[in-house]
Amino acid sequence: MTEKTKLISPRLPRGFEDRTPGDIAAVGRMIDTIRKVYERYGFDPVETPLFEFTETLGKFLPDTDRPNAGVFSLQDDDEQWMSLRYDLTAPLARFFAENFETLPKPYRSYRQGYVFRNEKPGPGRFRQFMQFDADTVGAPGPEADAEMCMMMADVMDALGLGGKYVVRVNNRKVLDGVLEAAGVSSVEQKLTVLRAVDKLDKFGPEGVKLLLGAGRKDESGDFTKGAGLSDAQAAVVLDYIGGKPPAGNDGVTELEAMQTLFDAAGYGPEKIKIDPSVVRGLEYYTGPVFEIELTFKVQNEKGQDVVFGSVGGGGRYDGLVSRFRREPVPATGFSIGVSRLANALKLTGNLGSDEPVGPVVVLVMDKDQTARYQAMVSELRQAGIRAEMFLGSTKNFGKQVAYADKRNAPAVIIEGSQEREGGILQVKDLVAGKQAAQAITDNAEWKAARPGQFEIKREDLVAAIQKLLSEQ
Amino acid sequence: MTEKTKLISPRLPRGFEDRTPGDIAAVGRMIDTIRKVYERYGFDPVETPLFEFTETLGKFLPDTDRPNAGVFSLQDDDEQWMSLRYDLTAPLARFFAENFETLPKPYRSYRQGYVFRNEKPGPGRFRQFMQFDADTVGAPGPEADAEMCMMMADVMDALGLGGKYVVRVNNRKVLDGVLEAAGVSSVEQKLTVLRAVDKLDKFGPEGVKLLLGAGRKDESGDFTKGAGLSDAQAAVVLDYIGGKPPAGNDGVTELEAMQTLFDAAGYGPEKIKIDPSVVRGLEYYTGPVFEIELTFKVQNEKGQDVVFGSVGGGGRYDGLVSRFRREPVPATGFSIGVSRLANALKLTGNLGSDEPVGPVVVLVMDKDQTARYQAMVSELRQAGIRAEMFLGSTKNFGKQVAYADKRNAPAVIIEGSQEREGGILQVKDLVAGKQAAQAITDNAEWKAARPGQFEIKREDLVAAIQKLLSEQ
Repeated sequence: MTEKTKLISPRLPRGFEDRTPGDIAAVGRMIDTIRKVYERYGFDPVETPLFEFTETLGKFLPDTDRPNAGVFSLQDDDEQWMSLRYDLTAPLARFFAENFETLPKPYRSYRQGYVFRNEKPGPGRFRQFMQFDADTVGAPGPEADAEMCMMMADVMDALGLGGKYVVRVNNRKVLDGVLEAAGVSSVEQKLTVLRAVDKLDKFGPEGVKLLLGAGRKDESGDFTKGAGLSDAQAAVVLDYIGGKPPAGNDGVTELEAMQTLFDAAGYGPEKIKIDPSVVRGLEYYTGPVFEIELTFKVQNEKGQDVVFGSVGGGGRYDGLVSRFRREPVPATGFSIGVSRLANALKLTGNLGSDEPVGPVVVLVMDKDQTARYQAMVSELRQAGIRAEMFLGSTKNFGKQVAYADKRNAPAVIIEGSQEREGGILQVKDLVAGKQAAQAITDNAEWKAARPGQFEIKREDLVAAIQKLLSEQ
Repeated sequence: MTEKTKLISPRLPRGFEDRTPGDIAAVGRMIDTIRKVYERYGFDPVETPLFEFTETLGKFLPDTDRPNAGVFSLQDDDEQWMSLRYDLTAPLARFFAENFETLPKPYRSYRQGYVFRNEKPGPGRFRQFMQFDADTVGAPGPEADAEMCMMMADVMDALGLGGKYVVRVNNRKVLDGVLEAAGVSSVEQKLTVLRAVDKLDKFGPEGVKLLLGAGRKDESGDFTKGAGLSDAQAAVVLDYIGGKPPAGNDGVTELEAMQTLFDAAGYGPEKIKIDPSVVRGLEYYTGPVFEIELTFKVQNEKGQDVVFGSVGGGGRYDGLVSRFRREPVPATGFSIGVSRLANALKLTGNLGSDEPVGPVVVLVMDKDQTARYQAMVSELRQAGIRAEMFLGSTKNFGKQVAYADKRNAPAVIIEGSQEREGGILQVKDLVAGKQAAQAITDNAEWKAARPGQFEIKREDLVAAIQKLLSEQ
């Protein structure tokens, strides 16, 4: 067989992406900021594995466009189905039920990690993405829900987004009351109505009206089937969106209690406001629902100005733990979409950049002297200085310098035979001499020009580099 | 249908585990320490997603006991097979090949994250576990391999394990030379021989001899089939293990070059030593292989004293990137098993404990006054103090105090109607009064005893708590 082996194409499955050093550092800082807020509110970390039994997760995902309901699943060797978690809430319910006897109650936890959706990927829509959640399990009152909203507001403030967000709050019980008053009873029709209400921001009352009725055709001609409500039924829903909450509804009472707590703690409507159009897609919510909306404008794919929109949200899910235990276990919490929030911070200039400062590079001038160069590198490292010996092909001197430049190195160290005999080193300050250096491609030319270059004694290596770094 | 819904059992699939706050904090600190060493050596972070195409990962796992070769795989909707990564090396090879044009060469990266093995779980053996790797791609010489070994040694020193570890080094080319000299040519027989050599520490030369020949029966009567070498063939292998390297072998030359570098940088045999029994299981290694062994004794399940053993290792894998590109791309690197290393640090007392300090808990004495309690909590949080209002059922006063104790709270704040009228608060120092408090279960008894309790003005809340925390 003299045929060449077929090469494998180096690529990722759709909807997955690699992360850069700058992104890792910036998101790491963002997560630290969020974590500090969660901890100040009394939450402790916990982490569950990425797999759960499929039955543990349940089927609560909205808008799933695949037969296996948006979840990556596989069968274990004992025939049981396992799935990758699609959020951090269902695993928390399992964890709380499993450790019911030993956990403090109420149980406050925060959790950060990847979740997976087996959905069609699109621009900004990934099949693996990071969430950062906080939940209180075992707290029945609106105080716990109000606290979630205030914590979301504090997170946004801590990230420097003050004045650029609003936490919007509603209650599923209010929505249920409206649906009942409108005579909507089938689960499927209910969900279609909720999705229509959710589109108020995007399409306005007229658009919602179409989606409540027969359906709506968008500019491109695509038709979205509506909920099929009669005009009278649609009017009940539209009245509610317009500001008329149903009378004698528990949800309204809970929202009022939450408003009292917001007022007492000094969270005005510029931070948190009650908004009848908030729906939240997940099926498991049973009471208050809330969402963080970033209110600044960005351009969409068509070049239109639109608000940035939601970067997280949550609500009360009193039924989720009860799937594992007979007694009722109230719970509330929220989730932040980490990449989406990082993206927003990038747009507002609050993420910070983080091109890492590179290592000092000791060049390899003579291949048989690597032990000497290695010793220099070790000295620098022992002094806490980022340093390395050039480890690529050393035939081309210019490539070594280009490498140091590309790594954002502060300096290179040069010891050829002449320097070695004289007990000295050449230090090239790459920050000072960056422009000049890029034009130089060979050893002779380098030695003539010496941009930003100076000579030190071999024994002064560490001290000289420390001085150079402190001055850059 | 009056039948009760069947409850779901709250449990995890075998081989997966939840992580506690203490573990998350301690491992986080350990990872920070390792990261600092990697960065000092000039490595930058990168992160790849958990899924890759199955063909990208290849089949390099040792000892797989399942038909799908130890990997969790599933078919995407376009019929292509995807797998969860089983290590952080195969994805790096894909990443490097995919970004070949733009990456600096040599490319130094570190990567931290979960990997998955679809294997039979056992004690200390999980199906999801964390690795923390560093690799240099595009560096052909033994300098790059030597650097890996020195970095592993520095990581162990930085973690406080100085004197308790040794980095052991060998070379696959040496092993290949020995196998050739012994006349072993089938791939399967080679692997069996390597596995036998790998057991030198565990079973001694006599045990290895049995595994090289017909096989070995252990104390429990279990029989492990051997490599089926003749006595003459086995003698060649045993001579090598006994200290006779094959003559004129490239691997021996490379090991000598590495030893020169260790000497130049001051890494003596108490830190790094060349050891002919090091094998490493993965198939893709092509040159130097190395492993970090912790040398202190622990008791195994049978109560016998054994060395703790390997917490990581790696080697040179010059063929892995070539699966994606025609030109040869040399590479070397190593991987640390994070949980196993954390476990070792726990045993030596180097991990540190981290029972988080709990929040100040504002008790709910009157249910209609939660807005007042919420305002106190907000004041404390705005001053940067961990604080929360008790959010559980408030009928039982003792339960609120027990909750604060369980959360490791430094203090609770009490405002009943009397205090409210007098404009004062009761502060109970839980560190001072912990023992006494646990015996108290009702409001009246509490008020009589007041262990560690003192009175402050309402407006002095923040200042008083700051003082109490600074004194605890």
